[in-house]
Amino acid sequence: MTGAGTTPRPSHTSPSQRLYGKISRADRARQKGQSPCVIWFTGLSGSGKSTTAKALEHRLVEKGLHTYLLDGDELRKGLSADLSFDDQARSENIRRLGEVARLFTEAGLIVITAFISPFRPEREQARKLMPEGEFIEVYVETPLAICEERDPKKLYQRARQGEINNFTGIDSRYEPPETPEITINTADLSTEQAVDVIMSYLHKGGIL
Amino acid sequence: MTGAGTTPRPSHTSPSQRLYGKISRADRARQKGQSPCVIWFTGLSGSGKSTTAKALEHRLVEKGLHTYLLDGDELRKGLSADLSFDDQARSENIRRLGEVARLFTEAGLIVITAFISPFRPEREQARKLMPEGEFIEVYVETPLAICEERDPKKLYQRARQGEINNFTGIDSRYEPPETPEITINTADLSTEQAVDVIMSYLHKGGIL
Repeated sequence: MTGAGTTPRPSHTSPSQRLYGKISRADRARQKGQSPCVIWFTGLSGSGKSTTAKALEHRLVEKGLHTYLLDGDELRKGLSADLSFDDQARSENIRRLGEVARLFTEAGLIVITAFISPFRPEREQARKLMPEGEFIEVYVETPLAICEERDPKKLYQRARQGEINNFTGIDSRYEPPETPEITINTADLSTEQAVDVIMSYLHKGGIL
Repeated sequence: MTGAGTTPRPSHTSPSQRLYGKISRADRARQKGQSPCVIWFTGLSGSGKSTTAKALEHRLVEKGLHTYLLDGDELRKGLSADLSFDDQARSENIRRLGEVARLFTEAGLIVITAFISPFRPEREQARKLMPEGEFIEVYVETPLAICEERDPKKLYQRARQGEINNFTGIDSRYEPPETPEITINTADLSTEQAVDVIMSYLHKGGIL
């Protein structure tokens, strides 16, 4: 081989190149002029998670913020299409959701998730993936009776008739958050009022 | 019950609310002033996928574009932490990657992936998740001998010594793309030149 320092090494083994570092979470957030976070809605089917989440996202986008709403049905049709609905599969679904939500914050986005996410350990696992203060758990505590009365997708009806198994609130448990950042009850609040409560929290918490 | 049209229904069953639609992929892309797409690098370990991908991302971000680079190691530590490295698990890993990449384009981002992704069917599956023209396969066709000579993570050495199994190019096959959008060979091109080739394609394809 040629003596070191006299001849450049062949370009095919070591092409001359500027080395690029990783574009960081902070870089991506700065580009978008915002602080990434996960706003994690949890609550029974029909509690108002999706409606509130959508309205919140509209409010944030109107302010020019870069968001993404991870939709439960969409995730089930795609990333989690291989999973069933038993407890173990539901846990795995929520684990994946947490990981994906984290990736979106790495991209600098404000991520909103609206899944029943019934079990406390999976929500806590998702929280642990995020830096302190950047996981905002929104407990939509609308009572079961009201959720069941609304029954927008007729799922409670089907669960009561035994057509659906492992349905949260009927034959599968829901573990309420012990110390959620925000609690809203959509039986008492309009969607706009619920969004106001969350926006107020985000302002106070320095996210906005 | 009260007569229809005479009294508003109780607010706890149907709170008055403006209904919000889903913020679409197009809305999110418009906000960012760009066309989302997946730029999918495939090639052997050591072929230059990650180096080129990082450099490409820097070039795009310098232009003010909103990107995200999905990193193989990071995905393996998080979303795919439950998977092994046998063929089936590697397929599932790539399936998830494709789904996550699609979600990022739904968020309006230009997504770059840099995984070996050795098997043709999984890459085709990922392609099918995307609208026509928005999946850009970049085949990094650097020859095995050069990849093995570079061996930046000493993985080939370990594979040859039998310390790693199912290593692409050694004891696991690599199926080259048949009609990739772009082919680059980093033995012949510098990183900047490789990025030029890709940028030129993106311009011609109307992505940029």
